[in-house]
Amino acid sequence: MRREIYLDNSATTKPYDEVVEVISDINRNIYGNPSSLHTKGIEAEKIIKNSREIIAKTLMAENDEIYFTSGGTEGNNLAILGYLRANPRKGKHVITTKIEHPSVLEVFKFLSTEGYRVDFIDVDQNGQVDVKDIEEKVCEETSLISIIYVNNEIGTIQPIEKIAKIKKDAVLHVDAVQGYGKFKIIPKKLGIDLMTISSHKIHGPKGVGAIYKNKNVRLSPILLGGGQESLIRSGTENVSGIYGFATAARITFDNIEENYNKCKKLKNLLVEKLKSEIEGVKIISPGDSLPYILNASFENIRGEVLLHHLEERNIFVSTGAACSSRKNIHSHVLKALGLPPGCIEGAIRFSFSHTNTVEDVEETVDALKSILPRISIRSGGRGWKR
Amino acid sequence: MRREIYLDNSATTKPYDEVVEVISDINRNIYGNPSSLHTKGIEAEKIIKNSREIIAKTLMAENDEIYFTSGGTEGNNLAILGYLRANPRKGKHVITTKIEHPSVLEVFKFLSTEGYRVDFIDVDQNGQVDVKDIEEKVCEETSLISIIYVNNEIGTIQPIEKIAKIKKDAVLHVDAVQGYGKFKIIPKKLGIDLMTISSHKIHGPKGVGAIYKNKNVRLSPILLGGGQESLIRSGTENVSGIYGFATAARITFDNIEENYNKCKKLKNLLVEKLKSEIEGVKIISPGDSLPYILNASFENIRGEVLLHHLEERNIFVSTGAACSSRKNIHSHVLKALGLPPGCIEGAIRFSFSHTNTVEDVEETVDALKSILPRISIRSGGRGWKR
Repeated sequence: MRREIYLDNSATTKPYDEVVEVISDINRNIYGNPSSLHTKGIEAEKIIKNSREIIAKTLMAENDEIYFTSGGTEGNNLAILGYLRANPRKGKHVITTKIEHPSVLEVFKFLSTEGYRVDFIDVDQNGQVDVKDIEEKVCEETSLISIIYVNNEIGTIQPIEKIAKIKKDAVLHVDAVQGYGKFKIIPKKLGIDLMTISSHKIHGPKGVGAIYKNKNVRLSPILLGGGQESLIRSGTENVSGIYGFATAARITFDNIEENYNKCKKLKNLLVEKLKSEIEGVKIISPGDSLPYILNASFENIRGEVLLHHLEERNIFVSTGAACSSRKNIHSHVLKALGLPPGCIEGAIRFSFSHTNTVEDVEETVDALKSILPRISIRSGGRGWKR
Repeated sequence: MRREIYLDNSATTKPYDEVVEVISDINRNIYGNPSSLHTKGIEAEKIIKNSREIIAKTLMAENDEIYFTSGGTEGNNLAILGYLRANPRKGKHVITTKIEHPSVLEVFKFLSTEGYRVDFIDVDQNGQVDVKDIEEKVCEETSLISIIYVNNEIGTIQPIEKIAKIKKDAVLHVDAVQGYGKFKIIPKKLGIDLMTISSHKIHGPKGVGAIYKNKNVRLSPILLGGGQESLIRSGTENVSGIYGFATAARITFDNIEENYNKCKKLKNLLVEKLKSEIEGVKIISPGDSLPYILNASFENIRGEVLLHHLEERNIFVSTGAACSSRKNIHSHVLKALGLPPGCIEGAIRFSFSHTNTVEDVEETVDALKSILPRISIRSGGRGWKR
């Protein structure tokens, strides 16, 4: 068996060894319910408190601005629906972009059935919103703007600070699931009121995430019950998962610049090699996109076929976002860029982590050189299907 | 340090060693996103599928009747709100009891602000609902009835099958968080349409649960996004947690009768010893309550003081449900039984697991005999406070 080359780190990441160990340790030894009055509860509560401090520090936020959730999807739902529910007298106009994650897009579609006027802002061919477009839409009735910081399919980074400056009375929610842990994000400095982050994108466990909520922003819970997380998120806390998340965040932030620079080199190398060694490749991700994500399209190729040929060689990539790739629909993100169907069809997302190496990139390009001629639609090779 | 005697198993349980190990194993080796198209995704998806089969089997349900959640609270919220949202044309009358878990009670309070007429059914001094009371309330407008199968504070078991027979067109949701894994529950046989279960009450990890949904019942999601769990529950699946849950369920159901009989003996022994060796004790849990839970009140004692004296001896109990014990309010369950304040004040919940022993019970009673005279309010000994 060839060694594994995992280039699907935007879908999910392999938990750090230390994360796996702390999760085991807590499951074995600190198994109390944080709400219990006795020592077993108090020691579990301390783990949560410690985790909250670690996460808060990564965002230069205060401890009581961090609320744990079951992941990015719940975080996005909680931030958006929770804010609107807590502020029913605010205006019924909300703004987002056309290239959000489904956990934002679907919430906005739901809002449009609940009496909200919804604007989905266009993006240019680089996936970039024009701040002026948002500025034109913002009015007195605008209660919330939700923007994805780093797009999960192509890596485009939105001008959050500029958007924060033209938001007027609206609150700004940022889906930072793909940005958190990749570069430093300081919500207060950027003018972000609400922000969603997730554990499993930074080598932490699945099933955990958090939201940042500026202290001045009121939020209603969307899960009702025992009133955990200062009434914002009921349910017995996932103690080991939360500490696993915090541990992953600590390790990630200790190496954040080093990791960034490493992935930047890897991405540049991949771009360079794709351009020089492979014919008919179009780089979709813009030049200033996040170094962790490279979306490229291969002419006369079906991305899914290429994906399966690569996986036969133990190389793992994606055709789009994991959460929508099973649905057999064209990416709403690539469509929003105005790309032709053939280009969307042939798109592959390579997504990096600090665990990747120069050899990973070299072997991937070698594999592409070997596979592509055989599966080109033009050459009649449609490749195998599952 | 004395050995640990953990008698707070209704708050949470210690994960089985095998559960801790499978979680580690999956976090290390099967870290793919189940939605990814490649092998890493498919092997993670298989883990979810296998887990679903295991859980379905424990309920004699079909695989597509099980949906994973982040725990009991989300399950109760999803079942109730999800049903009502999916069926907006059904009547605006809903029924529950006065002794539900907060994750049901708070949802019903929310519904009462959303135009629903809500009936909270009384219970008798044993915590038992009178089926006739429910029957009288059920009308054409009744869309949903939600009943806690086993009360988490006193162990009362409700007559679910009888309630199912008088529910007319309403759907019956059962909060079975404390019942699941303690005795066999077959939703289809009992007439249950929706049911909530949780992992961390059966020696599985925290942060995972599931709902049973009869195939004929329509449910809308409450968390919107990528459409995982057949559109019912979006969010990247907590693969290791889900498999940890399934593993805990498998082990638990393999020993379900043996465990039940063991806990029954332990509870009987505790009742007998409390009655014969300790003065001024009132057994609150009814005689036919679940063997896993014993609620008893000690005259002239503040439960919280007793709890802390017991924990000094490494014996862990609860004054009520963990999720409300921090709130410094009197238990809504004990109040609903019509108990006088002094009796509620002195209440302690002992909750068992198969891991407990006869020695645990004997040492606990010995500890009580030594502590109680010293902390009796009458003797002036109010004990230490935290």
